[in-house]
Amino acid sequence: MKNYFSSNFKLGVLGGGQLGRMLLSETQKFDVYTAILDSSETAPCAKICNEFHQGDLLDFDTVYNFGKKVDVLTIEIENVNIEALEKLEKEGLTIYPKPRNIKTIQNKASQKLFYKDHNIPTADFSRFASIEELKHAINNDAVSLPFVWKSARFGYDGNGVKVIKKVSDLDHLPTAECIAEKLIPFKNELAVIVARNKSGEIKTYPVVEMEFHPEANQVEYVICPARIDESVAKKAREIALKVADAFDFVGLLAVEMFQTQNDEILVNEVAPRTHNSGHYSIEASYTNQFEQHLRSILNLPLGNTNSKVAGIMVNLVGEEGYTGDVIYENIEKIIAIDGVTPHIYGKKTTKPFRKMGHVTIVHENINNAREIAQQVKETVRVISKQN
Amino acid sequence: MKNYFSSNFKLGVLGGGQLGRMLLSETQKFDVYTAILDSSETAPCAKICNEFHQGDLLDFDTVYNFGKKVDVLTIEIENVNIEALEKLEKEGLTIYPKPRNIKTIQNKASQKLFYKDHNIPTADFSRFASIEELKHAINNDAVSLPFVWKSARFGYDGNGVKVIKKVSDLDHLPTAECIAEKLIPFKNELAVIVARNKSGEIKTYPVVEMEFHPEANQVEYVICPARIDESVAKKAREIALKVADAFDFVGLLAVEMFQTQNDEILVNEVAPRTHNSGHYSIEASYTNQFEQHLRSILNLPLGNTNSKVAGIMVNLVGEEGYTGDVIYENIEKIIAIDGVTPHIYGKKTTKPFRKMGHVTIVHENINNAREIAQQVKETVRVISKQN
Repeated sequence: MKNYFSSNFKLGVLGGGQLGRMLLSETQKFDVYTAILDSSETAPCAKICNEFHQGDLLDFDTVYNFGKKVDVLTIEIENVNIEALEKLEKEGLTIYPKPRNIKTIQNKASQKLFYKDHNIPTADFSRFASIEELKHAINNDAVSLPFVWKSARFGYDGNGVKVIKKVSDLDHLPTAECIAEKLIPFKNELAVIVARNKSGEIKTYPVVEMEFHPEANQVEYVICPARIDESVAKKAREIALKVADAFDFVGLLAVEMFQTQNDEILVNEVAPRTHNSGHYSIEASYTNQFEQHLRSILNLPLGNTNSKVAGIMVNLVGEEGYTGDVIYENIEKIIAIDGVTPHIYGKKTTKPFRKMGHVTIVHENINNAREIAQQVKETVRVISKQN
Repeated sequence: MKNYFSSNFKLGVLGGGQLGRMLLSETQKFDVYTAILDSSETAPCAKICNEFHQGDLLDFDTVYNFGKKVDVLTIEIENVNIEALEKLEKEGLTIYPKPRNIKTIQNKASQKLFYKDHNIPTADFSRFASIEELKHAINNDAVSLPFVWKSARFGYDGNGVKVIKKVSDLDHLPTAECIAEKLIPFKNELAVIVARNKSGEIKTYPVVEMEFHPEANQVEYVICPARIDESVAKKAREIALKVADAFDFVGLLAVEMFQTQNDEILVNEVAPRTHNSGHYSIEASYTNQFEQHLRSILNLPLGNTNSKVAGIMVNLVGEEGYTGDVIYENIEKIIAIDGVTPHIYGKKTTKPFRKMGHVTIVHENINNAREIAQQVKETVRVISKQN
């Protein structure tokens, strides 16, 4: 085994946001020297990594030159320059996840085609080079309303996704490549994180459930374990394994799925990295997803993915109507509750819907955890002094 | 409440060793800006804190000037310049633990006198201004052999403590102030960590047990919960609370105790800070000791001190015969075991008996955890390339 611990080994990470920051907590635990590339000098990782480089993740030279400085390269965001990664890989650099996997995944059209090619269940869809092409297809009844429009590139946190009920819903959307996907009336949105190392060792985390706000149609709680039948959970884990296997994936793969009304599992989309749906693992799991990511890309043995206790995660997002220096109102009230842990991502400025942190609630009993989660959600507010 | 999270608030920490490093993991989680003072530019905290200052913790001006830069000051080591802390406190700086508590505790003679003054059970002892005075007392039969010699100042990890069976055992010991303590044949060495905030909220962690190597008389395992009678555990927690109360303590107080042959509890010594005996809490407890320390000194509500699972800690110390660039031999073998987490402190150079890291073993069942701990202990070695 290579000597990663307190050695001259250098891990490089493309992206220095909150996922990178939580990864740094693990690289510090193992004393793995870590260099970060991010476009912003105020990125959450900037001040606490071993080495910070400021630069554009989509720029060939920037990514290539950064890659030349490290021994293993990974990502915390999939929107990175793939050509640079491909060249670095050709030159012998170890890069996980593999550039070809990132390339397939970072474009939603190619990602969906990949599922079709590999017999992975997913909602039907059509791909369009531009929104004009899509409108043309609607006019010719080749696509029928309603459907889900998804931008092929750069979608993030609900950006780049819209339910289209009438043609005018397409107004003001980006004109670039997109897909039109069949609208799936689902019972549950589920997710499974798969970890796989180069040696082929593979493990899945338990199935988590995204509970939506009944009106706002926004994920309110990520709940582990999902409150679903064992047979459905088994199927979800099997499909997640099948996806990772099809990719010949190395690293962490977060597989988001729909549980349909008749308990079919359809893959919605995947992320080739640590994921919001796995944040609960820091407090609840034997091995959290960030440590697991590190283990998988360094080809170390994978850790136990079981949970010690039930876990629920609530995102801390900026309230509407507030932009400015952040204040976490009532945070002292929520940490007074047993089993409640806030994670603050280190962004000084809040703005509406910006992900500023998250709160994990752990409890032996999932129903108690769920009650506390609601209390947390109703108590803490991410605001600013000035509106 | 003061706004500590992602704000302009600045926490200062005297000392940048492994305890500071594990604290940084928590200040990063809460995004509390943290400045560290340590004499070594290669201290474990140096590269990963928000602000690092190099300087002597025992120098008045260095500590005073550092204190002027921060809003709340704390310690991760008790050997610091007290006069500077007293002046800073007089000038209005919030310092926890309180300088007068650190002062009493950093001198073992005054610490023992404090126990006597407050009716806290402890082994009988005599205080001597020098080793010459002690020898004189032995010659006059005022102190009888065997006894335990303890240096009044700067003892650490077994340094500054020696069992004296014959007068010549005193040869080559430091000549400074010391105590002679009655040798206690104990059943168990126990420890309880108490947390208390300024508002007076107070909590104890479960009693842990130090299991010694049968021959080497070195602590091998810190085990939580201690495998002792509930009545003994209750007594130990009560006495720990009594000690914290007597000090009117704010912060974390680690109380080390002996369980005597007839189940008396005697206080051995205390540390006014996070402690090796609480490292298991990172993986096993609802609130780990480092987060709890932060909560207590910032007067936030204290977290749940209960355990999710049983935890055992094994120290990773440098093997005899090896000095140089550290290698953690077989670390990949131990992390292949479920529930095993190494913490590497980030010291590049190993030397015999140097504390380089620790390993936590968690399991639902403490007996299984104990078996795995032994396997870990027998597998991993802290060595170097060159002898």
